[in-house]
Amino acid sequence: MALTPDFDTYPIDFTISSATAERGAVHVTWSDGRVSRFHNIWLRDNCPCVECVHQVTKEQTFELVVVSPEIHPAAVSVTSEGSLSVAWSEGEHASEFHAGWLRANCYSAEARAERTVQRITWDSSTMSAPPTFDGPAVLSDDGALYEWLIALRTYGATRLRNVPCTDEAIGHVIGRIGIARDTNFGLFWDVRSEPNPVTNANTALPLPPHVDLPTREYQPGLQFLQCIENEAIGGDSILVDGFRVAELMREQYPSEYRTLTTVPFDWANSAKVTDYRWRSPIIVTNTSGEVTEVRVGNWLRAPLDLPFEQVEEAYAAYRCLFEMTYREDLQLRSRFEPGDVVAFDNRRTLHARSEFTDVGGPRHLRGGYTERDDLHSRIRMLERGMRERRVALGNSTLG
Amino acid sequence: MALTPDFDTYPIDFTISSATAERGAVHVTWSDGRVSRFHNIWLRDNCPCVECVHQVTKEQTFELVVVSPEIHPAAVSVTSEGSLSVAWSEGEHASEFHAGWLRANCYSAEARAERTVQRITWDSSTMSAPPTFDGPAVLSDDGALYEWLIALRTYGATRLRNVPCTDEAIGHVIGRIGIARDTNFGLFWDVRSEPNPVTNANTALPLPPHVDLPTREYQPGLQFLQCIENEAIGGDSILVDGFRVAELMREQYPSEYRTLTTVPFDWANSAKVTDYRWRSPIIVTNTSGEVTEVRVGNWLRAPLDLPFEQVEEAYAAYRCLFEMTYREDLQLRSRFEPGDVVAFDNRRTLHARSEFTDVGGPRHLRGGYTERDDLHSRIRMLERGMRERRVALGNSTLG
Repeated sequence: MALTPDFDTYPIDFTISSATAERGAVHVTWSDGRVSRFHNIWLRDNCPCVECVHQVTKEQTFELVVVSPEIHPAAVSVTSEGSLSVAWSEGEHASEFHAGWLRANCYSAEARAERTVQRITWDSSTMSAPPTFDGPAVLSDDGALYEWLIALRTYGATRLRNVPCTDEAIGHVIGRIGIARDTNFGLFWDVRSEPNPVTNANTALPLPPHVDLPTREYQPGLQFLQCIENEAIGGDSILVDGFRVAELMREQYPSEYRTLTTVPFDWANSAKVTDYRWRSPIIVTNTSGEVTEVRVGNWLRAPLDLPFEQVEEAYAAYRCLFEMTYREDLQLRSRFEPGDVVAFDNRRTLHARSEFTDVGGPRHLRGGYTERDDLHSRIRMLERGMRERRVALGNSTLG
Repeated sequence: MALTPDFDTYPIDFTISSATAERGAVHVTWSDGRVSRFHNIWLRDNCPCVECVHQVTKEQTFELVVVSPEIHPAAVSVTSEGSLSVAWSEGEHASEFHAGWLRANCYSAEARAERTVQRITWDSSTMSAPPTFDGPAVLSDDGALYEWLIALRTYGATRLRNVPCTDEAIGHVIGRIGIARDTNFGLFWDVRSEPNPVTNANTALPLPPHVDLPTREYQPGLQFLQCIENEAIGGDSILVDGFRVAELMREQYPSEYRTLTTVPFDWANSAKVTDYRWRSPIIVTNTSGEVTEVRVGNWLRAPLDLPFEQVEEAYAAYRCLFEMTYREDLQLRSRFEPGDVVAFDNRRTLHARSEFTDVGGPRHLRGGYTERDDLHSRIRMLERGMRERRVALGNSTLG
């Protein structure tokens, strides 16, 4: 069986019916009739052989620049084991590609569409509460963990219930996903009204919808807020889907949307011993124009530092966004019960709280962060495990 | 004296000569003749009074949406202490702005140009070695620290010498700047040839120019590589300014540059227990078109996952960049001596090593990461200290 270039497992659900070299690419026809086209240079680059990939690290040692851009197959065939075999026009080199790996990496429009990860935006008309899961199950069972993580990736906001009300639990929850992110507020931190707060979060004041640490180049990707005690009056917890807000702004206020995606705002964390600041548009899009993050935090803005003629436009766009984050139809509102953990994408979902009074009893939350790519890594590892079990059970036609 | 809205210190080097309200803005004329214009809404938003800013946290409690966009001064004056005083048209509110704070936040074209942070790109014709500093001095003296950090911010590559060859030293060096970044490779990590490496870095193989962890959503911002022992033959250390490469590509290969700034590549860290991947263009620019990061690492690329018609263009652009990173006139080459620490912007400066053999003696490096905004925070805190000392010595006209 052909080597694969990484540690993943690739079930063979479809076999290669035929392979031919045509106009710069190898055309592979599969047992289900689908056709994949792989460019010559793409195939050469992905050769998994012992000369091209270090077999212990599974990292590439081949360097693209040692072959010419014109490299092409001298011969193409399907091996008796069902792999794609290519003899190259230069370097006296041959490559053999595992059918499962090849199918998994097909870049036809159809295959790429199938790999698209679903992201569903929400507001209070489509969702009454964040998708909710049982904490102890998530902490002990990988199946429950997987369901929770898919919801977290899809909706950017979830809730666990019945998590132990201990100081350590938040670390255990985060540890199910990845590495806790240390910041100037500590690895884990407490949210309660304090006599000498270092941040407005540690007062009884209301907090308008915000993400944490918009003041950092790297805003934490995932936030976890655990309720340990809540006997306060008030202090409702509010969640707003920042991607839904961006979507609505793009439709209803295109000019303000454009401003928020292009004009940089300044963010600052006013502190005695650190001075973290960052400059970034409020809505960040990738090169395809998709929203990848929002930076929002009214009290974490530094003075606007823009050319004079842009200031009024920036304030108008900011006001438009700020008002939207206060719209009741965009807010999910709930009360924290001890044992709840709200887990959300901190670069997507804004959180807020209403004013509270703790004279009758304390309100104590505990929080921490990890990153979005830790979430994705964990999901992939759980899916790798599922594939390994499927192959072990013989549920694929491994040759 | 007027309040200021944060913990910083604002020497008054220029006093306010006059202030008038005109067409949506307050015009302030300073003792050196400069004129600042502050929009009404900007001033109202930045009111530092006890109602608008929490006086313990120094974080804003005022919410922009409680005033109208048309808010304007009912009266403007300069107080006997030299502050700007504004009585507002609504809310029976008045604001007093500290002259030093106001001047520091002036957003005239002149003032903004003065605040621009210098960034100097380099190649082997303009720099023969990274700016080099004395390790023990940097570890103990804030003046030496400041010089090093400014060089690190400006050039994105520096070297310390005579750092103690202990396992703890790397943590002490990073601790002078900020919080060490934990990753799947550990908080600090060793680079040496190992019998069972988890990465090609831990072999004796050559490593082409790369940044660390392009596979993460957040590539570490700063990298520190300490040489503890080096008796190997070969293993030269190579640095390449990725921003210089981007600059040259933009000039000489505009079409390839455009591809690398717009087409996403896939990055993957092949591992047994994690599966970190990220998708991003190789050259990342901000909304002003300035290069803010590069992602390069030949052996950390996942199979290209692009529409069929973009693949050849992407490979051609990647080849162009890869070849440039090997150009001798763009590489700084040196040999690590025990006690050296190379510190560089890991989202800007590529590093590489030539093949080595350690049969005659070991080559042992130790590394760690922190973030670029930790660097900026530390620089600002050192500068805050300088301003505090200046004010304490009476070197400003504090009223």
